[in-house]
Amino acid sequence: MLNCAVVGATGYTGAELVKILLRHPRVNLVALTTRQVTSIPLQNLIPGISKKNSLEVRKFSFPEIQQKADVVFLALPHTEAMDLSAKFLRVGKIVIDLSADFRLRSSAVYEKWYGVKHQAKRLLPKAVYGLPELYRDKIRKADLIANPGCYPTAACLGIAPLVKDGLVELDSIVVDAKSGVTGAGKKLNPATQFCEVDENFYAYKVGRHQHTPEMEQVLSEAAGTDVRLTFVPHLLPLRRGILATIYLKKRAGVRASKVRESFEQAYGDEPFVRVLPDGEFPTLQKVQETNFCEIGFTSDPGSDTLIVVTAIDNLVKGASGQAVQNLNVRAGFPEEEGLLR
Amino acid sequence: MLNCAVVGATGYTGAELVKILLRHPRVNLVALTTRQVTSIPLQNLIPGISKKNSLEVRKFSFPEIQQKADVVFLALPHTEAMDLSAKFLRVGKIVIDLSADFRLRSSAVYEKWYGVKHQAKRLLPKAVYGLPELYRDKIRKADLIANPGCYPTAACLGIAPLVKDGLVELDSIVVDAKSGVTGAGKKLNPATQFCEVDENFYAYKVGRHQHTPEMEQVLSEAAGTDVRLTFVPHLLPLRRGILATIYLKKRAGVRASKVRESFEQAYGDEPFVRVLPDGEFPTLQKVQETNFCEIGFTSDPGSDTLIVVTAIDNLVKGASGQAVQNLNVRAGFPEEEGLLR
Amino acid sequence: MLNCAVVGATGYTGAELVKILLRHPRVNLVALTTRQVTSIPLQNLIPGISKKNSLEVRKFSFPEIQQKADVVFLALPHTEAMDLSAKFLRVGKIVIDLSADFRLRSSAVYEKWYGVKHQAKRLLPKAVYGLPELYRDKIRKADLIANPGCYPTAACLGIAPLVKDGLVELDSIVVDAKSGVTGAGKKLNPATQFCEVDENFYAYKVGRHQHTPEMEQVLSEAAGTDVRLTFVPHLLPLRRGILATIYLKKRAGVRASKVRESFEQAYGDEPFVRVLPDGEFPTLQKVQETNFCEIGFTSDPGSDTLIVVTAIDNLVKGASGQAVQNLNVRAGFPEEEGLLR
Amino acid sequence: MLNCAVVGATGYTGAELVKILLRHPRVNLVALTTRQVTSIPLQNLIPGISKKNSLEVRKFSFPEIQQKADVVFLALPHTEAMDLSAKFLRVGKIVIDLSADFRLRSSAVYEKWYGVKHQAKRLLPKAVYGLPELYRDKIRKADLIANPGCYPTAACLGIAPLVKDGLVELDSIVVDAKSGVTGAGKKLNPATQFCEVDENFYAYKVGRHQHTPEMEQVLSEAAGTDVRLTFVPHLLPLRRGILATIYLKKRAGVRASKVRESFEQAYGDEPFVRVLPDGEFPTLQKVQETNFCEIGFTSDPGSDTLIVVTAIDNLVKGASGQAVQNLNVRAGFPEEEGLLR
Repeated sequence: MLNCAVVGATGYTGAELVKILLRHPRVNLVALTTRQVTSIPLQNLIPGISKKNSLEVRKFSFPEIQQKADVVFLALPHTEAMDLSAKFLRVGKIVIDLSADFRLRSSAVYEKWYGVKHQAKRLLPKAVYGLPELYRDKIRKADLIANPGCYPTAACLGIAPLVKDGLVELDSIVVDAKSGVTGAGKKLNPATQFCEVDENFYAYKVGRHQHTPEMEQVLSEAAGTDVRLTFVPHLLPLRRGILATIYLKKRAGVRASKVRESFEQAYGDEPFVRVLPDGEFPTLQKVQETNFCEIGFTSDPGSDTLIVVTAIDNLVKGASGQAVQNLNVRAGFPEEEGLLR
Repeated sequence: MLNCAVVGATGYTGAELVKILLRHPRVNLVALTTRQVTSIPLQNLIPGISKKNSLEVRKFSFPEIQQKADVVFLALPHTEAMDLSAKFLRVGKIVIDLSADFRLRSSAVYEKWYGVKHQAKRLLPKAVYGLPELYRDKIRKADLIANPGCYPTAACLGIAPLVKDGLVELDSIVVDAKSGVTGAGKKLNPATQFCEVDENFYAYKVGRHQHTPEMEQVLSEAAGTDVRLTFVPHLLPLRRGILATIYLKKRAGVRASKVRESFEQAYGDEPFVRVLPDGEFPTLQKVQETNFCEIGFTSDPGSDTLIVVTAIDNLVKGASGQAVQNLNVRAGFPEEEGLLR
Repeated sequence: MLNCAVVGATGYTGAELVKILLRHPRVNLVALTTRQVTSIPLQNLIPGISKKNSLEVRKFSFPEIQQKADVVFLALPHTEAMDLSAKFLRVGKIVIDLSADFRLRSSAVYEKWYGVKHQAKRLLPKAVYGLPELYRDKIRKADLIANPGCYPTAACLGIAPLVKDGLVELDSIVVDAKSGVTGAGKKLNPATQFCEVDENFYAYKVGRHQHTPEMEQVLSEAAGTDVRLTFVPHLLPLRRGILATIYLKKRAGVRASKVRESFEQAYGDEPFVRVLPDGEFPTLQKVQETNFCEIGFTSDPGSDTLIVVTAIDNLVKGASGQAVQNLNVRAGFPEEEGLLR
Repeated sequence: MLNCAVVGATGYTGAELVKILLRHPRVNLVALTTRQVTSIPLQNLIPGISKKNSLEVRKFSFPEIQQKADVVFLALPHTEAMDLSAKFLRVGKIVIDLSADFRLRSSAVYEKWYGVKHQAKRLLPKAVYGLPELYRDKIRKADLIANPGCYPTAACLGIAPLVKDGLVELDSIVVDAKSGVTGAGKKLNPATQFCEVDENFYAYKVGRHQHTPEMEQVLSEAAGTDVRLTFVPHLLPLRRGILATIYLKKRAGVRASKVRESFEQAYGDEPFVRVLPDGEFPTLQKVQETNFCEIGFTSDPGSDTLIVVTAIDNLVKGASGQAVQNLNVRAGFPEEEGLLR
């Protein structure tokens, strides 16, 4: 049994993480904390818990976590994890950080896209990007795991094998992604009031979303050379899920069958990536409340465009489920533990 | 006052058309018909009508319409309009057909994409494509107006000026479109049952939607040469609206300012196209229940990709509102008549 | 032409009012104001307006409205209308107040339920409750019209004829009402964030909603004696509409046919109340974006309970449409003017 | 380990049952069947299952189930379970029937409300009504368990203690219930097409829903005398959940504190009923995807009306979760097994 703490347990991501960990047979939840002052019975936060469960979300206390936990999950807004991560690492904890703070290798890129100074640059080289399908071996030994963004997870899983295997051009990738509203977090926001979202749909941060460099970093590492892409996110009038429609140019001479081979080779043994048969494409309902990424694809008839569609649950494979998958990899647990129906 | 008949008044498109025409100050609704046997008080079909209104939707009768109407709107499923159009034209009516039957100039292309034989090929050369922003002069004199598809309206308005002005490559256009459920029509369908659509989202007919050749025809005519594009439609969990996110490659040497110039020149005087200021993009809520198309655009930083986002209401500018706009053009009425708040 | 001003034009109610008045053939919109500092083009607020329309919502200015307007609509939060109403009345304006400030005849009751001091008690006797179906004659001569609350409109129209005609017991009326989210106003509120409302439903202010005394006042006046009722409102995951399911005990000896007679007599000539045939009940879709109230009813088999279901659009018949109906009554215009399809 | 079969595994209820049983530590799923001919991989039906899971839903075969299963769950439409239940009982199986066929003790009442002949009347005396909070002792020994309807579960849990303890009048109970769309089943239906439900709300089968006699039977047994109630169901634009707002008349002299005592005594030790503190009321989000029933209540100020609000997930506590709870009771498993987070 591994003793785990969740710092920031009341946001959408934190609560989802607690929900998953509650059911994990090898995890002991030793501390759930929030920056809010009062303590909250976990039963008020998460539906479906036994009336006899006495767990509480309590005010954050470093000494308490230091004493009790082996692994610390940080589910905090960007920038708030930097300092804490360093402190927990210093006292020997494994840190799985769900914020963006340690995902980008370059602090300059981070500072450009997030508009704030990076306060823990020296930790960046130690951080491992927690996308198990691409970085599993490094995650096994990492003490600081930077859990990927939701959009980069959906996009990179649909693109990485293709750029790695040299099947597509690297200068004309388009990711048109659509996300549910939990992706925006629980913060009070006029744009996410019900009457503004319901029966509505729109693109936002067009070509300027901060997840763009994260995708480019992952894909460049997969390709072994620079990859640039165009990324446009949209807001869907629903709670959970990201669907990414990805447009790529096949390289000259690449046969259609190569694409399936590439995906099958990359994901045939992956527990949480499902490559769909020809003619099938993912839906959000098929991945909601699961840690799966589903991938469908086709060649556009009469052009050299390849269309790849991926879907994940932004709170699970796009955040908390992936964090638990990373925990399983790091702890040497079976990778599906706690993450299946 | 023009005497108008609506054939097929009980579908989503037909009912929307009746709603708009009821308010049109120069239109007299002389016949509303359906293939269903019994007559229906219009009050049961359309909310908000005066209790004293005695209009009914009645069983279709050719002689009745022949006698009473000057203009016949056909809001029927594909293939059902072919024969009727010919008959109404023969007796001197102006026909505005909201189906796909007369949109494609080539019956071969029609038969390939719709999978049925075209029964009225000799009318195809007479049909005028009813997108006033591009074909206004021809519409003024047309007796058979082929009202555009919803997706082609949203896509072509966002692309046509750019291909006409030579600003973008013609072989790498991507249209990623998202539509509300009314676009699927009122027909009973397992895929559009509430529980299958609610909190769901997915792509369908990926790269194979029958509106693709319609877009290519319009854009090829605008460009003066062949245009090919990749089109992927998606189903949104909401009732009304299409948002199209369009990706284009700027031609070498084209400055960003040229794009705005092109749109402003094309649409500055258009009553129903709004080109948004830099940094603004359309939302479905801003166009629902209106005949407007809103267009926002930006250059992707650090690549030569141009991103154009357009939005319309699929039942208004994408169908019935545009049909009334065509009526106004054809009849010499002010083009906004009956189509504003 | 009547010159009208709307004070508070940017809330859901205010914007809906402007939408309706824009289309009113006998109204001239001379001033649209907001407490927000900057001016906003009306085109940004209301979809579907002509590109040539140059109306703006501007900062409130008493002298400007005093000079230009004959009628002033106040669409402000409770308490903010008290002082202004007095000032506008003093300079001879007709005031139609959409807040709750002048609906209750007793300042003591107001102060108990709204928790604030009433600042304009001496105006209360002049205020006329603007439910035309019950108070039309008084509205014709009123200078201060208190536009009814949305829930009271839905409830009272379904109950008033029955209590007036002595058909039901007065001590056991239950109003179980369900409202869309626009009823909560545009104010930023954690409870109306999308993720809290979507796929959710609940009762709120159970037995304690401030619209209770308003219903009791109206029904007591209709009955000629004290009426008490139990009122429970609920929040629906949709934008517009109120559906009220009302449970009443028939008085001993009252035949079922009397109920229909009572409703028909009360509403047969009413332009905006539709009494449905036996076996039909209203739906929100049938009344959304209209000024109609639809009423269906049935006797519970095997008990003396009468079930009445009413539906309105909370922003139209429940607020702004009713305000315009009141304007029409007061100004001697045809009552349907500007309020039909 | 108990060997269980699910007959009718592809409907909403059946699939939910499979989802729950998959996670149950003491259950072995030995057969999942459907009336549809072809077999379906369970992975296609239920999201989140391991890629290695090879379970299939197959065509129904009596001998196969006879041979393999100890317990048979029937998740079939009404009337289809009658014959099968008899056959499975005859060969010694425990039958948990999720249809309405064995819920009503009187075949005459069944035939009146369901409009069909009862084909297995002689089994009715053996059937035990599967609401564990009221019939636990009988369920422990039952071989035919009639799993309750969704509305009766929500209503009876909110009323039974009060009628049992003599706190309320028995002739004036009103149940105003609101259900998500999964309650209507998966059958193709014009009324449950997305565009008819989305942004809509209405009452249906007003005073005439077939769950009425089921509620009256349960409550009459709890009261020890005849109980009559008025029941009006409504359709919510969401997938899962029932919220029932219940209006009762307190008997003369009953103090408010008695109500809490009654609920606490009835449900204090119940694993799946949560009685909320004063001033709190349930929401659908708090019970969705759980087997809990939450109950809030208050006295209407200034009348003798008691307002009780209950909420359940119609597919879990209202159907499949309750079926598993019944299994746990019958098999002597801990009652929460497989039913918590």
